Amino acid sequence: MTAVERTRRALALLAERARPEAWIAVRPEAELLAEAAALDARVAAGAALPLAGLVCAVKDNIDVAGLPTTAGCPGYAYAPGRDAPAVARLRAAGALVVGKTALDQFATGLVGTRSPHGPVRSAGDPERVSGGSSSGSAVAVALGVVDFALGTDTAGSGRVPAAFQGIVGVKPTLGLVPTEGVVPAARSFDCLTVFAPTLGLAGEVAGVMAEGRPGVGGRGWPADAPLAAPPRPTVAVPAEGALRVLAPGWRAAFDAAVGRLAAAGARIETIDLGPFLRAAELLYGGAFAAERYAAVGAFLDDPATGGAPGVDPTVRSIITAAGRLSAHAYAADLARLAELRHEAMAQLDGCDVLLLPTAPEHPTLAEVAADPVGVNSRLGTFTNFVNLLDLSAVAVPAGEVDGGPFGVTVIARGFADRVAADVAAALTGEELSAERPALGAPGLPLVVFGAHLSGQPLNGQLTSAGARLAGAVRTAPEYRMVALPGEPARPGVLRVAAGEPGQALEGELWSLPPAALGRLLAGLPAPLALGRVRLGDGREVTGFLCEAAAAAGAPDISHHGGWRAYRAASAG
Amino acid sequence: MTAVERTRRALALLAERARPEAWIAVRPEAELLAEAAALDARVAAGAALPLAGLVCAVKDNIDVAGLPTTAGCPGYAYAPGRDAPAVARLRAAGALVVGKTALDQFATGLVGTRSPHGPVRSAGDPERVSGGSSSGSAVAVALGVVDFALGTDTAGSGRVPAAFQGIVGVKPTLGLVPTEGVVPAARSFDCLTVFAPTLGLAGEVAGVMAEGRPGVGGRGWPADAPLAAPPRPTVAVPAEGALRVLAPGWRAAFDAAVGRLAAAGARIETIDLGPFLRAAELLYGGAFAAERYAAVGAFLDDPATGGAPGVDPTVRSIITAAGRLSAHAYAADLARLAELRHEAMAQLDGCDVLLLPTAPEHPTLAEVAADPVGVNSRLGTFTNFVNLLDLSAVAVPAGEVDGGPFGVTVIARGFADRVAADVAAALTGEELSAERPALGAPGLPLVVFGAHLSGQPLNGQLTSAGARLAGAVRTAPEYRMVALPGEPARPGVLRVAAGEPGQALEGELWSLPPAALGRLLAGLPAPLALGRVRLGDGREVTGFLCEAAAAAGAPDISHHGGWRAYRAASAG
Repeated sequence: MTAVERTRRALALLAERARPEAWIAVRPEAELLAEAAALDARVAAGAALPLAGLVCAVKDNIDVAGLPTTAGCPGYAYAPGRDAPAVARLRAAGALVVGKTALDQFATGLVGTRSPHGPVRSAGDPERVSGGSSSGSAVAVALGVVDFALGTDTAGSGRVPAAFQGIVGVKPTLGLVPTEGVVPAARSFDCLTVFAPTLGLAGEVAGVMAEGRPGVGGRGWPADAPLAAPPRPTVAVPAEGALRVLAPGWRAAFDAAVGRLAAAGARIETIDLGPFLRAAELLYGGAFAAERYAAVGAFLDDPATGGAPGVDPTVRSIITAAGRLSAHAYAADLARLAELRHEAMAQLDGCDVLLLPTAPEHPTLAEVAADPVGVNSRLGTFTNFVNLLDLSAVAVPAGEVDGGPFGVTVIARGFADRVAADVAAALTGEELSAERPALGAPGLPLVVFGAHLSGQPLNGQLTSAGARLAGAVRTAPEYRMVALPGEPARPGVLRVAAGEPGQALEGELWSLPPAALGRLLAGLPAPLALGRVRLGDGREVTGFLCEAAAAAGAPDISHHGGWRAYRAASAG
Repeated sequence: MTAVERTRRALALLAERARPEAWIAVRPEAELLAEAAALDARVAAGAALPLAGLVCAVKDNIDVAGLPTTAGCPGYAYAPGRDAPAVARLRAAGALVVGKTALDQFATGLVGTRSPHGPVRSAGDPERVSGGSSSGSAVAVALGVVDFALGTDTAGSGRVPAAFQGIVGVKPTLGLVPTEGVVPAARSFDCLTVFAPTLGLAGEVAGVMAEGRPGVGGRGWPADAPLAAPPRPTVAVPAEGALRVLAPGWRAAFDAAVGRLAAAGARIETIDLGPFLRAAELLYGGAFAAERYAAVGAFLDDPATGGAPGVDPTVRSIITAAGRLSAHAYAADLARLAELRHEAMAQLDGCDVLLLPTAPEHPTLAEVAADPVGVNSRLGTFTNFVNLLDLSAVAVPAGEVDGGPFGVTVIARGFADRVAADVAAALTGEELSAERPALGAPGLPLVVFGAHLSGQPLNGQLTSAGARLAGAVRTAPEYRMVALPGEPARPGVLRVAAGEPGQALEGELWSLPPAALGRLLAGLPAPLALGRVRLGDGREVTGFLCEAAAAAGAPDISHHGGWRAYRAASAG
């Protein structure tokens, strides 16, 4: 589909789906079509735009040049001079912003009802809430109006609405995506998120937003950030007690999700969720709430605005109460959080991810109206601690309960975003493309030919170090292979001299964290070496070689074309 | 010297130097000698204790089992059940704790006079202050009583006293040394420090304290932490204006230090110190002061202690005022600090370290008594921002002014502690041993033979990646070397087949950050490879090899015994 076609479809669906409360601003049709036509022309002229023509919506606490930023409070509106850097990166990659979406005012809420434009109703069930605070963005994606949408997430705002709409929500590690040009909710714990129908697209969009120099308070990928989950990940799940809060039927749905992961080869480990839940309490029950006052307190208390009319009463009471908290309590909570992080990480020791229901229930509009603070607070049970503990998370649909969506979140360590995405994909059955970009650290290539191949005895040296399989490859026809003596059985690969006949050898191309490649090399026994290997398609990449002196007496097995074929033949 | 001899000397000097105000507690002689004798016995029995028999003093806000921790306030004293983990690591390495030293109460001060045991006088000039807050520890080292001593550092407490005593003060990156068992000053920005007469010993002690699992709030070394300063480091110095605060003669002394670094090959770059100084103002001028109230405010305000008698009035007024700060101001200061960190890092772009006078002046006891807050505040001008901006620092003596010590601090990025130490060594002329452990990340070995040797065209690929030269090595006599075609000129090293005559080749052994080794490998051109190289002493380490196919037609230059000899011969 062209950008113009996607834009026309978006505008038609926007009208047809009739959820006006989900949108705060939609750009004029003529302007959108002109931008779409220009994008199509660039693509036709050969421009390589990874998100070419995809249409998206942006939560209205994120700056988009030409549209006011309201944060869900018309009185707060300002006209940003430019796109938030994250939005600018998406537009530079070819995405087209259709408009701005509704949110719980100042991103304060997980319900979706704290909006002057009316409560945002769930995409599938108008009696129930959309969840928030990124309510409009999730609904816009779920209704098919846009290809993807941006949210923000401090307490779960990029995950709870994903669960209630049955879509994917990717919450990157704090600091990977620049938050400049975003109205802060709690600046120390805010991040941008992506809603999309698939993990692949959500990861790709997040990856584009994370590319480039880190912004203020931002962080780059560490050199040992894992690029993949191991083939048999260890998945932590909470002990019994923590799941008693689940709505009827939700426990069975969660258990079914755990069962699917186990069936796919995951090891399931029960942990104590205590330190996580105690950290969660600090987000609203402690002094960190003052982050919200630091963000918009001056606006709320400004006598010039007459006390800022149009502010949701629940939001106002939360934020103004936070203005009275003391700095020493904040400092004490930071210390307490460091302790809880230590305890929580000890619980995750040996585990690749933590699997949780995204929310404990899906409330109706009426339930929220009856108890706006209590219901909101319950909705954050399994999400509030994630940013506080510096974790990454991916929320995915995981079946239905009574015809409504049920969702789980795969939570990984900070910078292990790719691990979370892989386990989430194992759950949904989605195949993540090895070619498309995704949210993850850059890796270094390594071609393996023998004991490091998938399923072979030393493959764990790659997978336990966070390596990712890119695929099968074949060398240029200029190599020979010998069977080296010793255990485990290993081949030696050598380039033949110029003019001599050589063989194309089967191998696997992996991508490794830079530090993992260095450590693998440091542990390599003679006569193996890592050097340049030429592939059949002309690429020259790092790969396993063998010292010629040691290959001299070893049997030549080149004619098998690869280690697996040789092993199969010798076994037969 | 044995531990018993060192202990006897320490006790004798302690009495002879007669600075009772520097000590809060000294362990009984019999107990010390018994522990020393036991250490000597272990060493005699072959125990490998890197700090065997070294005697040390510990600032009295750090727990040592068997001695009360007072934080300089007798009313606050408690009896710790065990050593702080950092102290435990030193004792496990063979160090012997003689006693606890005086400090500015609750580590609140840079003067050394805020102590109920009397103002701590400078080791060299009893009319002047010792500096603080780690006053007693610095004096104990400067007077030769102990081999080294522990301090703590939030605003400069581990550096200012080093400058005023003419000794070395090492302030590691935040989180490397566990701070459990330390009475917090401002917990988010506290770290343990080491005073010693030499960089080598201070670095070794800090290295021992940083070994092991990170504690609560702690951090491990990143996989690309540099292991050394480049041979020609780029040294940032502040623009003119920032140095106008220096006492008479101090500017000339600073310029002389800069001149010595330039003469040693450093590139000097003038930067704007503005963002650093603005960050410094946040430590006491902003809400972070509330960290101090969070630490001991409850004690100060406890009605049960009658308002805690024995508290220094200046310390009390600073801490109780901090109890009235608001949490939203703390949150706003965190956001402001993130911006300033971004600006400060932009100033350091392209620079390896920042060189500054450690303090702007060395005040007399009378000057501090006349203006306790004003003088204290001036003393932190060049130190206050270092922990806030997540930097590492090494304070070293740099000559004298009017017979008194003058000191400078080499400031490096977080986790670049080794870079700071190297530049500091270039300044003092101390040779840092390649064999002794030091505060620095673990590296991976690499033997180079040609273009990567020191002074050769590609050596910058190692030094710019933070590699450290371990020394010259020679392979086992089982290799041959060829001269490869192409530019830059490079050798190819190959192991000879078993039984064939080989040559011992000269090379250099380097240590690389794991990620740097991975990246070097990824950029290596054919026919070079990295594999296992056997050294003359039997070690097998990673080193440069060459594919045999490419070596076939290349001239054999093995008889030169190494690349440098070959190049010299070909040039001659």
